[in-house]
Parts: sequence; structure tokens; C-alpha cells
Amino acid sequence: MTAQPHRITVIPGDGVGPEVVRSAQRIIAAAGVAVDWEEAEAGAEVFKRGDTSGVPRDTRASIERTRVVLKGPLETPVGFGEKSANVTLRKLFETYANVRPARELPGVPTRYAGEGVDMIIVRENIEDLYAGIEHMQTQDVAQCLKIITRKGSEKIIRYAFELARSQGRAKVTCATKANIMKLTEGLFKRTFEELSAEYPEITAEHLIIDNVAHQMAKNPAQFDVVVTTNLNGDIISDLASGLVGGLGFAPSGNYGDDVAIFEAVHGSAPKYAGKDVINPTALILSSLMMLRHVGEAAAAATIEDAVLVTLEEGKAVTQDLARQTGGDIEHAASTTGFTDSIIANLGKRPATVPKRAGAGAPAVAATPRPRWSYGADVSASVAHATVGVDLFLESWVEAGEAGRALEALAGDALTLQMISSRGTMVYPETGLKPDSVGLLRARFVAREAAADVSDAEIAALVLRVGERFAWTHVEKLHVFAGEDGYTKAQGQ
Amino acid sequence: MTAQPHRITVIPGDGVGPEVVRSAQRIIAAAGVAVDWEEAEAGAEVFKRGDTSGVPRDTRASIERTRVVLKGPLETPVGFGEKSANVTLRKLFETYANVRPARELPGVPTRYAGEGVDMIIVRENIEDLYAGIEHMQTQDVAQCLKIITRKGSEKIIRYAFELARSQGRAKVTCATKANIMKLTEGLFKRTFEELSAEYPEITAEHLIIDNVAHQMAKNPAQFDVVVTTNLNGDIISDLASGLVGGLGFAPSGNYGDDVAIFEAVHGSAPKYAGKDVINPTALILSSLMMLRHVGEAAAAATIEDAVLVTLEEGKAVTQDLARQTGGDIEHAASTTGFTDSIIANLGKRPATVPKRAGAGAPAVAATPRPRWSYGADVSASVAHATVGVDLFLESWVEAGEAGRALEALAGDALTLQMISSRGTMVYPETGLKPDSVGLLRARFVAREAAADVSDAEIAALVLRVGERFAWTHVEKLHVFAGEDGYTKAQGQ
Repeated sequence: MTAQPHRITVIPGDGVGPEVVRSAQRIIAAAGVAVDWEEAEAGAEVFKRGDTSGVPRDTRASIERTRVVLKGPLETPVGFGEKSANVTLRKLFETYANVRPARELPGVPTRYAGEGVDMIIVRENIEDLYAGIEHMQTQDVAQCLKIITRKGSEKIIRYAFELARSQGRAKVTCATKANIMKLTEGLFKRTFEELSAEYPEITAEHLIIDNVAHQMAKNPAQFDVVVTTNLNGDIISDLASGLVGGLGFAPSGNYGDDVAIFEAVHGSAPKYAGKDVINPTALILSSLMMLRHVGEAAAAATIEDAVLVTLEEGKAVTQDLARQTGGDIEHAASTTGFTDSIIANLGKRPATVPKRAGAGAPAVAATPRPRWSYGADVSASVAHATVGVDLFLESWVEAGEAGRALEALAGDALTLQMISSRGTMVYPETGLKPDSVGLLRARFVAREAAADVSDAEIAALVLRVGERFAWTHVEKLHVFAGEDGYTKAQGQ
Repeated sequence: MTAQPHRITVIPGDGVGPEVVRSAQRIIAAAGVAVDWEEAEAGAEVFKRGDTSGVPRDTRASIERTRVVLKGPLETPVGFGEKSANVTLRKLFETYANVRPARELPGVPTRYAGEGVDMIIVRENIEDLYAGIEHMQTQDVAQCLKIITRKGSEKIIRYAFELARSQGRAKVTCATKANIMKLTEGLFKRTFEELSAEYPEITAEHLIIDNVAHQMAKNPAQFDVVVTTNLNGDIISDLASGLVGGLGFAPSGNYGDDVAIFEAVHGSAPKYAGKDVINPTALILSSLMMLRHVGEAAAAATIEDAVLVTLEEGKAVTQDLARQTGGDIEHAASTTGFTDSIIANLGKRPATVPKRAGAGAPAVAATPRPRWSYGADVSASVAHATVGVDLFLESWVEAGEAGRALEALAGDALTLQMISSRGTMVYPETGLKPDSVGLLRARFVAREAAADVSDAEIAALVLRVGERFAWTHVEKLHVFAGEDGYTKAQGQ
């Protein structure tokens, strides 16, 4: 109980959203936590009124005031708005850490029951392929930029270690595909390895993402905290929730430097809306993450115990769970009835679930001193040279012919080093003829070793090549502090 | 039995490779299939002799002759060779289809036993992020290009449908992240939807990749054939093998237009090498895919039955399986003993496993007429305009200031449309200040609607901007046949 009520923005959302949100609000009130809810709108109705973001100005203003959001799922109606309002909210407030606990629950039948699965997936929420920067290179060749930054990596990896520390968790697993993507996923892995030294009491391990998926199927109880890049995290967090009962039991928190947003993972399930049948557990568990975030750990623990007791008893069972357990769907508990049972169980302790030191996500990590500095002065202090350029060309010309033509166009400052097709070198000729897709990458490098290639030389090259080939994309080849900032082609 | 022996290249490989390969060869011989094996070298010893590819010329020549390879795992010793010889082999012969069956086996204890899991993951094996094209944009911002082509997508999707057809399978599921990556993953999804019309007897469905991972954990028996892009496929094929007993039971085939390579998914497991203890099942199952590929379906079925009978009996059990079943590890079967049991069981039928119409992968798909044509003439026939350009700039300048500076540099032909940071618009200013990572993307578009921006105009822009900002990357903005070939920024 607090003297001063917490101010929290609540967005009931679409479909079943208002019902699950109301359930969580009733339980929080019954547990004695005083909240001054600022109810705000977002989603389907907002889009239909012509706001293409789905998130009105008033709602944004409320979140800027309260900095904490409890929300139901939002719909993006077909034909209104291009981007999901759920995603827009996360982007607007730069909630860079998507935290998805996956924990075995009593009374929820799964194939892994009794193994003690209790992990937290910490997913980077801003960058990677989700920056959504796509360019058609030719009419039949599409490209998306996967962007991984040291700063973005440092923030999420620190978040994961701080989370582990605050909860007394023993291990953080970093999941990447660094063996294939040495610069992008490799940057994430290297950042993890460097930061792990600051957390000597926590076991730090790195696993390749496909092995993580394999191990999650074979022995998920081995995982504790898992930190990973955006797409990897999207896939394995959904996998993890599938191991412990599905989306009806999957909470999430999105944490930024300023704002945190708590929501169930599931959608708006319109066919169940207004019928008082939906299982509110996911949103209730999300609200516990919220309570811990605002400093109400004791109340969160009390409510969590009541939820566990209710699931353990198996007396009030919602339809979805009755279906899974082969129980009586006709007489399943309503959303309201299930909520009432949890409230009635406040103060009880579950019999079968061991007590944990902490649960859910912590308050925003205690702003640790950054390991790296970032900025123009830091960039300027690092030796940097531009040693060449990659040009991407639409061309169906045979590699040898393209190579000879491009050699002739290279000019005085540059020389053609190689041509590749989908990453595999095709010139100088290797004798193999990989399938052409009409896009070649030609790499030109400075004729003189260690020469810095100028913008004027690149512009002149592009214009010369452009007379003969349609180019679509130019990448400088950088060397930073003596390290090549580009990869070789397969076979180079 | 065939009159003419099959010529097949066999690469025993490293670690346990020779033992598992020998096991499969013995069984094939015992089943009466005449093979003229061309034994060839690749892997650790080859690297150590100074061949940086790990795949010698003689081996390549043998594969060009035989076009079929059975191989053990290859090691890439640390300090020799940059690229895995396993990957090099797949790339050299452009085996674009990676086929990974995951099937419940009798006697192999898993949490999903008895549910009838029997799926095949068909993974695109050439493009996507695995083209490995990476460029540091700044010292702290890494980029990898995700490349998806219509031609590459058509080939793998057709392969999956032809596989389903040849095996009498009812459903093909396409797994993408098209909701986020509308151009790249979207191209794969659209290609799937268009091709599915040619296979009316097969149910075609599309699921988002994270949902596929979730559903595989919850109800894997729902999947039949799953076709997907390279990284997605890497993750879910390892997940699928985790559901049915792990890598000891995971076969694979890599199919190209000319060459097919069959191998177990597991590595060389050096600590078990030469001890006659390794479980050869994965390689044996891979060899069955090979036999079907060369037209020996009947022999493959006989051997498959013998493997199933041996696993079902549980009399000859290798160490790994004894460990899983809590059996007697001391008296576990040797690799040789397990192989002997399979040979002794040739001709028997398993009691508990229902007979399938077909199994494993088919012969190379019967070259279906391509739906699309590709080439310079086709490209030229499509209306194409360059309507602008994205410049990626290293800059820590505040967005408003950068915007005003770039407006002034845009020139007569172009105008600054927006600036984004990691895909989120920051100029024109939205009032929000996302975290800067020192890389901005500035989008310039033609001042006059429908104007085609020339290379000269772009080069002039790049030089003007380059006086003030360090640029790293240039992308043309294309419109093909009236469709924008680029995405908008978040918030644009």
C-alpha cells in the first residue's frame, strides 16, 4: 500500500482488451495498490477516425506524464493505417527492451510440466531487420537492411545482465548467428563478451541461435535469461511461450529509458470479445511486471501467489484451459469468475510452486556507467580510411564479360577486385556458374595500398560505370583502426 | 537391384564421419544396391595441407562426374581457412534446397512421442542474410544485406510443392516475416501465393515465422511440408529436429539443379571418433534420401523399415539413446553392432509405424515450366523510374540541424523528404527524440513528380552532401511498373 496513488496510463484496447484489462485492474485494487488510472484510447476506433498512427495526441501526452502503460491488444483495421499501433507505441517511446518471461505454471498442462521451465527472453526491440529499411534492387531482387549498433547492443545486453542481477538469476545466454554474420551478429556477441566481465557472479554463455531453438525443444529448463537480437528474439520468445502453455499465459514488458509498456502477447481475439470468456492470465501477469516496475514488489508477489493458487486448485478454469485439460467447457469459469477466484485467493500461498527470490522484470536498470562512449569526437579519434567501394549493378551479362568491362571502367585510382552474385564470387572466374539473379556486386579497391579513396573518385567511377551498367546501390569500404569494415565474398 | 552400379562420391569426412559413412555403405550393400563409390577427401586434413577451401580439385571433379555425394561432417580447423568446408560444398554446387525431415521414430523417447510428428522443412539455402554481405556503416554501426529474389524464391517454393506432390503430402506451409519485411519476406510470400495456384490438390497456408515456432512447440503434428527463407529455416529445422530426438536422428539433403549432397546435420564429434560408439542413424537416414534421389526407392523403403524395426525392438541401442532412455550404457550397442542389427532386420516390417506413401525427398523436381521469365529483355520491358535516393550519413548532429543543412544541399532537381534513424523518422521533427546511434538516413526525392532522377544529379548531390557529412551508403529509390520499390520510415 502506498500513500500516494501511482499514475498509470491504461489503454483498454480492442476486442477482448477491455475485459482482460478490467480483470487486472480489479485484482490490483483488491490487493490494495492505489492507482490513479488515466484511461486513454488507441487502436481500431482511432484509425477509423482518420488518425493514421492509431495513437492519438492525448494518449501520447498521458504516457509522457505517467511513463507507465498497461494496455490491451490493439487492432489495425485493414485499409486504415499502414503500421500496427502496438508497434507504433513501442517505437514512439523507444522501449528498447522487450522482456518475455516463460515460466511453467501449475494446472497448465504442457509436455514440459514438472521440468521447472522458468526463463526470461530479453529481446532487442528497436533495430535489426525491424528498422524496416527495404529497397528493391531490381524488379525481382529485394533487399532489407539488417542494422546492429554497438550502442543498441550495449543497452539491451546491460539490461539483461541487470535483470539477472536484480533477480538473483545465475546465467545469461546470448543467442546470435555470429558464425555467419560476423560483423552484425558478431558485434552483438562481442559486446556481450566484453560486458559480461562486469558481471562476474553471473555465468555468461553464447549459443548459436539455431542451437538455442534446438535446446529449447530438448531441454528448456537449462535456460535462465536469454538476450538476443530482434528477429531471433521474436522467434524464440514465441517458441518459449509455446513450451509453457501458449499465448494465454504469455506476459510481456517493453522497457525504455523513460517509458515502460506492459501488455499481453496475444491479439484482440474479436470473436471472444464481450462474451466474458477470455482467459485474462497473460494480462494479469503483465500487470505484475508493471507493479514491480513501479516499486510494488510485495503486492506483485501477493497477486502472483493468488494466480498460482487459482491455477493450482483448478476450480475456476477458463474455457481455453478446460479445452486443453479435457475439462468441462460448458461449466468453465467466466473471465469475471476467474478474476473473482484470484481475488478470493489473495493472501494464500501455492503448495506446489517453489518461492523465487524475484520475478518478472525489475525497475528500469540502475543506469550503469556505459562502457563505451559514442559521439562525433569519439568517431573522429579513430583512424578511418575509405579503401574502396562496392557497386551493386543490375546486369544479366555473363560474369567474365562484366568483369572485363568493369576492369576497363575502373580508372586510375581504383581497380576491380572481384564481382559476386548473392555473396559468391563469380569474377575472377572460378569455373563455376552460379544461377544469375540479375544483380552483381562489383568491388573496387584503391590501386595503391592504404590510399584513402575520395568522394570525387567514387562519384567519377559511379558515373563511368553508370554509362554501361544500371547501378542501384553504393557502399563504401571502410577500415576503422586497422580493421576491415567489410566481409569477403564466398570463394574470394 | 540395378544392373548398372550407381556412381556416387563418398566423403568420409572428419571425426566420427568415417564410421557413420561406413555404416550406411554397409547397409546399402547388404540391401543389394550396387554402388561404385568414388571416395574423395575434404575437411581438416585438406585445410592443413594449405587448401584454404577445404575441398580439393579432385573432389570437385568427382562430384561434377557423379553429381551425387554422401558425406560425413567436415571440420574447419581453427587458423586454417575462413569458411566452413560444409558450407563451401553447398555453395560450390549451388544446392539451393536444404531438406530436413523431422519424423517421430519408434524407441526414441521424446515429449511428443505418439503424436505422429512427420514434417519436412524445406529451407532456401543460397540467399537471404547468408549471402554474408556486411559493411560497417560507422565504427559502431554494422549492416548486413538481406537479399531475397523472385527467382530464388520460385525455385525453392516449387521444390517444396513438387516434393509434397511426389510424396502425396497434403499441405505446404510457407513461413515468413512478411508482416514486418513487406518487400523481402513479402516477395517470398507473394511468390508462394502465386505458385500455390498450380498445385490445387495441395493445401497452401502462410504463417508468420514466430507463430510457426510457437505452433511447433504446441502442436508440431499439424505441420507437413514447411517452406521458408534461409535464416528462418535454419532456426525452425533445428527446432523441429529437437522435437523428435535431436541431431542423432536428423538427416538432410541439399539439392541443386545438378548436384545433390546428403549429410547428417550433426558435427564431427571428435571425442567419440574411432571408438565405435557413435549413433549412425542420422547418416543412414540421409543415405535413404540419397537412394530415393538415384531411383532406388524400393531399397530405401526396405532399409528404412529395418531401421525402424531396430529402433522399435530396442535390443541394439547406441550409447546416446541408452542415456536418454535410462538404459544400460555399459552394454550399449557399438556403431558396428547397431549396423549389424539393421542389416539383420532387412526385410522385416515395423509393427508400430504406419506405412507412408513416400518418404524422404524425391528425385530432383521434374523441371516445371517457370512461371516467370528473368533476363535483360524482361527487365527492359518493365516501366522503371528512379524517383530519388537514400543517403546514409555518419552524423551525431541533432535531427533538426541536420535536416536544415540537408535541405540547403538538396539542389534544384531534388528535395529532402525526410531523415530517419534506425528506420524511425526524426525529420521533419515529430517532437520525439529517439536515441542517436550516429547514422542518419536522408531521403531525397525528385522535386517534380514523376521525374526520373539521373546519375549525374545523384553524383552531384552526393558530392555536395559529402562536403558537409561523411556518407557511407547510397540507395536509389526505384519505381517498377508503378509500384514503389522502397518502404516508408516509421512515422512517415
